[in-house]
Amino acid sequence: MATYMDVHHGMVGITADQLREAHQADLAIEKDEGVHFERAWADPVSGTVYCLSTGPSPDAVQRIHDRTGHRADEIHEVPLMV
Amino acid sequence: MATYMDVHHGMVGITADQLREAHQADLAIEKDEGVHFERAWADPVSGTVYCLSTGPSPDAVQRIHDRTGHRADEIHEVPLMV
Repeated sequence: MATYMDVHHGMVGITADQLREAHQADLAIEKDEGVHFERAWADPVSGTVYCLSTGPSPDAVQRIHDRTGHRADEIHEVPLMV
Repeated sequence: MATYMDVHHGMVGITADQLREAHQADLAIEKDEGVHFERAWADPVSGTVYCLSTGPSPDAVQRIHDRTGHRADEIHEVPLMV
Protein backbone atom coordinates (compact mmCIF):
# COMPACT_ATOMS: atom_id res chain seq x y z
CA MET A 1 0.00 0.00 0.00
CA ALA A 2 1.18 3.47 -0.83
CA THR A 3 0.03 6.99 -0.02
CA TYR A 4 -1.10 9.33 -2.77
CA MET A 5 -1.90 13.01 -3.13
CA ASP A 6 -4.11 13.61 -6.11
CA VAL A 7 -4.97 17.01 -7.50
CA HIS A 8 -8.04 18.21 -9.38
CA HIS A 9 -8.05 21.50 -11.27
CA GLY A 10 -10.97 23.45 -12.71
CA MET A 11 -13.22 23.14 -9.64
CA VAL A 12 -13.78 26.90 -9.31
CA GLY A 13 -16.67 27.65 -6.98
CA ILE A 14 -16.84 24.19 -5.44
CA THR A 15 -18.98 24.27 -2.28
CA ALA A 16 -18.62 22.44 1.02
CA ASP A 17 -21.61 20.27 0.08
CA GLN A 18 -20.13 19.38 -3.30
CA LEU A 19 -16.80 18.43 -1.74
CA ARG A 20 -18.52 16.28 0.89
CA GLU A 21 -20.74 14.60 -1.70
CA ALA A 22 -17.77 13.84 -3.97
CA HIS A 23 -15.82 12.42 -1.05
CA GLN A 24 -18.79 10.31 0.08
CA ALA A 25 -19.20 8.96 -3.47
CA ASP A 26 -15.54 7.90 -3.45
CA LEU A 27 -15.84 6.31 -0.01
CA ALA A 28 -18.91 4.34 -1.10
CA ILE A 29 -16.99 2.36 -3.73
CA GLU A 30 -13.33 2.67 -2.68
CA LYS A 31 -13.18 -0.89 -1.35
CA ASP A 32 -13.66 -2.20 -4.90
CA GLU A 33 -10.08 -1.11 -5.60
CA GLY A 34 -8.58 -1.48 -2.14
CA VAL A 35 -8.28 2.31 -1.89
CA HIS A 36 -9.08 4.56 1.07
CA PHE A 37 -9.64 8.28 0.70
CA GLU A 38 -8.51 9.82 3.96
CA ARG A 39 -8.97 13.57 3.57
CA ALA A 40 -9.58 16.20 0.95
CA TRP A 41 -9.06 19.97 0.86
CA ALA A 42 -10.50 22.45 -1.62
CA ASP A 43 -9.63 25.96 -2.74
CA PRO A 44 -12.80 27.20 -4.49
CA VAL A 45 -11.06 30.37 -5.69
CA SER A 46 -8.42 28.67 -7.84
CA GLY A 47 -10.60 25.58 -8.26
CA THR A 48 -8.03 23.18 -6.84
CA VAL A 49 -8.88 20.06 -4.82
CA TYR A 50 -6.29 17.87 -3.08
CA CYS A 51 -7.17 14.31 -2.00
CA LEU A 52 -5.02 12.19 0.29
CA SER A 53 -5.48 8.45 -0.12
CA THR A 54 -3.89 5.08 0.39
CA GLY A 55 -4.09 2.27 -2.10
CA PRO A 56 -2.28 -0.30 -4.19
CA SER A 57 -1.54 1.94 -7.21
CA PRO A 58 -2.30 5.34 -8.74
CA ASP A 59 -4.45 3.58 -11.33
CA ALA A 60 -6.62 2.14 -8.56
CA VAL A 61 -7.14 5.64 -7.15
CA GLN A 62 -7.96 6.97 -10.59
CA ARG A 63 -10.47 4.20 -11.31
CA ILE A 64 -12.49 5.23 -8.25
CA HIS A 65 -12.36 8.91 -9.21
CA ASP A 66 -13.33 8.00 -12.78
CA ARG A 67 -16.37 6.04 -11.67
CA THR A 68 -17.55 8.88 -9.42
CA GLY A 69 -17.15 11.42 -12.21
CA HIS A 70 -14.18 13.42 -11.05
CA ARG A 71 -11.01 12.18 -12.69
CA ALA A 72 -7.81 13.49 -11.07
CA ASP A 73 -5.50 15.70 -13.14
CA GLU A 74 -2.41 14.57 -11.21
CA ILE A 75 -1.75 11.67 -8.87
CA HIS A 76 1.50 11.76 -6.92
CA GLU A 77 2.76 8.95 -4.76
CA VAL A 78 4.00 10.60 -1.57
CA PRO A 79 6.19 8.03 0.20
CA LEU A 80 7.68 10.71 2.47
CA MET A 81 5.60 12.45 5.11
CA VAL A 82 6.00 14.29 8.38
CA MET B 1 -6.97 31.76 11.06
CA ALA B 2 -7.16 29.92 7.76
CA THR B 3 -5.88 26.61 6.43
CA TYR B 4 -3.40 26.52 3.56
CA MET B 5 -1.95 23.91 1.23
CA ASP B 6 1.32 25.09 -0.21
CA VAL B 7 3.18 23.37 -2.99
CA HIS B 8 6.89 23.22 -3.77
CA HIS B 9 8.16 22.04 -7.14
CA GLY B 10 11.69 21.09 -8.19
CA MET B 11 12.47 18.94 -5.15
CA VAL B 12 13.42 15.87 -7.18
CA GLY B 13 15.25 13.31 -5.05
CA ILE B 14 14.24 14.82 -1.71
CA THR B 15 14.94 12.35 1.11
CA ALA B 16 13.02 11.58 4.28
CA ASP B 17 15.75 13.30 6.30
CA GLN B 18 15.62 16.43 4.14
CA LEU B 19 11.83 16.62 4.45
CA ARG B 20 12.02 16.21 8.21
CA GLU B 21 14.79 18.80 8.54
CA ALA B 22 12.88 21.32 6.42
CA HIS B 23 9.71 20.75 8.45
CA GLN B 24 11.64 21.09 11.73
CA ALA B 25 13.19 24.35 10.51
CA ASP B 26 9.71 25.71 9.77
CA LEU B 27 8.37 24.55 13.15
CA ALA B 28 11.25 26.23 14.96
CA ILE B 29 10.26 29.73 13.81
CA GLU B 30 6.58 29.40 12.84
CA LYS B 31 5.35 31.17 15.97
CA ASP B 32 6.99 34.40 14.77
CA GLU B 33 4.21 34.63 12.17
CA GLY B 34 1.40 32.86 14.05
CA VAL B 35 1.64 29.95 11.60
CA HIS B 36 1.54 26.23 12.34
CA PHE B 37 2.79 23.64 9.86
CA GLU B 38 0.72 20.53 10.48
CA ARG B 39 1.88 17.96 7.96
CA ALA B 40 3.88 17.65 4.77
CA TRP B 41 4.04 15.03 2.03
CA ALA B 42 6.73 14.59 -0.62
CA ASP B 43 6.93 12.88 -4.00
CA PRO B 44 10.68 12.62 -4.67
CA VAL B 45 10.10 11.36 -8.22
CA SER B 46 8.28 14.44 -9.53
CA GLY B 47 9.92 16.65 -6.89
CA THR B 48 6.66 17.90 -5.41
CA VAL B 49 6.14 18.74 -1.74
CA TYR B 50 2.76 19.60 -0.19
CA CYS B 51 2.58 21.37 3.17
CA LEU B 52 -0.62 21.77 5.19
CA SER B 53 -0.63 24.71 7.56
CA THR B 54 -2.80 27.11 9.48
CA GLY B 55 -2.07 30.78 9.82
CA PRO B 56 -3.29 34.34 9.47
CA SER B 57 -2.41 34.78 5.76
CA PRO B 58 -0.58 33.18 2.85
CA ASP B 59 2.11 35.83 3.20
CA ALA B 60 2.75 34.72 6.78
CA VAL B 61 3.20 31.13 5.58
CA GLN B 62 5.54 32.29 2.82
CA ARG B 63 7.64 34.41 5.18
CA ILE B 64 8.43 31.32 7.26
CA HIS B 65 9.27 29.25 4.18
CA ASP B 66 11.41 32.11 2.87
CA ARG B 67 13.43 32.33 6.08
CA THR B 68 14.05 28.56 6.10
CA GLY B 69 15.20 28.61 2.49
CA HIS B 70 12.35 26.83 0.73
CA ARG B 71 9.93 29.35 -0.74
CA ALA B 72 6.60 27.83 -1.84
CA ASP B 73 5.67 27.96 -5.53
CA GLU B 74 1.94 28.00 -4.78
CA ILE B 75 -0.04 28.71 -1.63
CA HIS B 76 -3.74 27.87 -1.72
CA GLU B 77 -6.17 28.72 1.01
CA VAL B 78 -8.31 25.58 1.49
CA PRO B 79 -11.38 26.67 3.43
CA LEU B 80 -13.20 23.44 2.55
CA MET B 81 -12.08 20.09 3.91
CA VAL B 82 -13.42 16.64 4.62
